[in-house]
Amino acid sequence: MHAITIPEPGGPEALVWDEVPDPEPGEGEVLIQVAASAVNRADLLQRQGFYDPPPGASPYPGLECSGRVAAIGSGVSGWNVGDEVCALLSGGGYAEKVAVPAGQVLPVPAGLDLNRAAALPEVVCTVWSNVFMIAHLRPGETLLVHGGSSGIGTMAIQLAKAVGAKVAVTAGTQDKLRQCAELGADILINYREQDFVEEVRKATDGKGADVILDNMGAKYLDRNVRVLAVNGRLAIIGMQGGMKGELNIGALLAKRAAISATSLRARPLEEKRAIVAAVREHVWPLVAGGRVRPVVDREVPMPDAATAHRVLEDGGHVGKVVLVAP
Amino acid sequence: MHAITIPEPGGPEALVWDEVPDPEPGEGEVLIQVAASAVNRADLLQRQGFYDPPPGASPYPGLECSGRVAAIGSGVSGWNVGDEVCALLSGGGYAEKVAVPAGQVLPVPAGLDLNRAAALPEVVCTVWSNVFMIAHLRPGETLLVHGGSSGIGTMAIQLAKAVGAKVAVTAGTQDKLRQCAELGADILINYREQDFVEEVRKATDGKGADVILDNMGAKYLDRNVRVLAVNGRLAIIGMQGGMKGELNIGALLAKRAAISATSLRARPLEEKRAIVAAVREHVWPLVAGGRVRPVVDREVPMPDAATAHRVLEDGGHVGKVVLVAP
Repeated sequence: MHAITIPEPGGPEALVWDEVPDPEPGEGEVLIQVAASAVNRADLLQRQGFYDPPPGASPYPGLECSGRVAAIGSGVSGWNVGDEVCALLSGGGYAEKVAVPAGQVLPVPAGLDLNRAAALPEVVCTVWSNVFMIAHLRPGETLLVHGGSSGIGTMAIQLAKAVGAKVAVTAGTQDKLRQCAELGADILINYREQDFVEEVRKATDGKGADVILDNMGAKYLDRNVRVLAVNGRLAIIGMQGGMKGELNIGALLAKRAAISATSLRARPLEEKRAIVAAVREHVWPLVAGGRVRPVVDREVPMPDAATAHRVLEDGGHVGKVVLVAP
Repeated sequence: MHAITIPEPGGPEALVWDEVPDPEPGEGEVLIQVAASAVNRADLLQRQGFYDPPPGASPYPGLECSGRVAAIGSGVSGWNVGDEVCALLSGGGYAEKVAVPAGQVLPVPAGLDLNRAAALPEVVCTVWSNVFMIAHLRPGETLLVHGGSSGIGTMAIQLAKAVGAKVAVTAGTQDKLRQCAELGADILINYREQDFVEEVRKATDGKGADVILDNMGAKYLDRNVRVLAVNGRLAIIGMQGGMKGELNIGALLAKRAAISATSLRARPLEEKRAIVAAVREHVWPLVAGGRVRPVVDREVPMPDAATAHRVLEDGGHVGKVVLVAP
């Protein structure tokens, strides 16, 4: 088969479409003939040599895919050759075939084509595990999403609205904020011109955000703690603004608040299986019912993954960039 | 009645036993004729003028007491005049009488006298709400307790052992560590001579602590994050080592770990009631069965509360210092 390889870490041009050995489905695994994959920020780090795949994972980038089941390993039930599926991967999505533990495979939701289904697994699992399984966002609460127009952001807005929460988002342009509003966001904050602490407080009668989904890490840590409501939960999933920041424990304690930090890729099989099962139970019906949809910025041919990476690096996109296999 | 008043914030001598108006039980409240109270570190801060009672609370110090029900406000069921009780207070325990919401009252556990029962409410509610309700310590996991010989520490050791967890403690003398061991602590760390990160790792095959109960705040923040296990939970309940510290978000994220910070006193009625109900269900049977006991360093006559505060400030005590009403 062919896959995107990284002979030498570097810029987008480091991504090379090359012939590689076919993967085989191991025990408990399903082999997928890939229709599409999608780009995640972690792929950019992997390309630059900053984010090695976890032990046992495929060396090729790609944390999600869609496609058809091509073969089934021993000990797998519930899937048949030819099934249209999408999957959460530990790597290897930028390829024509990928082997994945059966517990990380999902059916393609009714009404969705394979290209759009490829844009779902990573963002849905990330948002569901953080905002709902860890931070327990409840109806009537306020969720603040940083980077509201990103793949993660566009999914977080829709899921939070679907459960009856109020949603505040930050983004860098009015056009991005307008698109967040179309997805249901209630409080729109242009981080280049406005202070999100002030804006969220203003819009919540001084109460603040009950849950924050943050991709900035250190740069926003102090302001995130300041804008948290009493009993607030800050869920950190990225460190685009740095790794080390000053924590005001006094402010956290006065609010009886909590901070969690997770990444999905490093989680053990059992935890991924539990997240995927919860997503299938709680999110898939919302997608099939049309209440939640993948937001796709554009589709790019997989061999030209470099172009897709440049789109993410330029930051002008809204939602996911999908890679379509040849 | 008489109560300990604080005419001017200051040292232990600021505590003055004086005649004050009797409290009346309001709607939903019980009036307790106090037999004993106990000293908490928050009382020292209140005496120094650093910790004002929350709105509506008694101006006198004292976050817990035991005694007999002397009167019952309207809308209260489940308690009768003469019942032997102990209670979690928002203040006012250093007094001959105190009014308290009925949801914060507990029966004196079987086999315990009133003086020892006064040493239970604050530590049991703090440990249960943090270690079990927030951090979900599970059988087989490792709990690290800083200040293992404190009132909180001695209770945390016993409750964690009772549910089948492994317990590591830090303390400043070998004698304190020996007493922690008698209560069941498995891993004994003299923080003056040993590095707790290294010692806990050594004793857990490099795994670290699943839950940490911390009273030091900023001073221990970085080391606490370093010693956390994967999926670890750091529960901060005090800031004796400062309020602001550098948080290594990268380390937290790599471990998929979480930090919470709470104080019991500021929680609204409804949350206190839920904690007290959980304590009655889960902890009271352990106390009645003799598996968990209050550790009392000494009893001091309540009018001489200054002496009791000096004991806590000197730091030579193990467990709680009880104040016995005249």
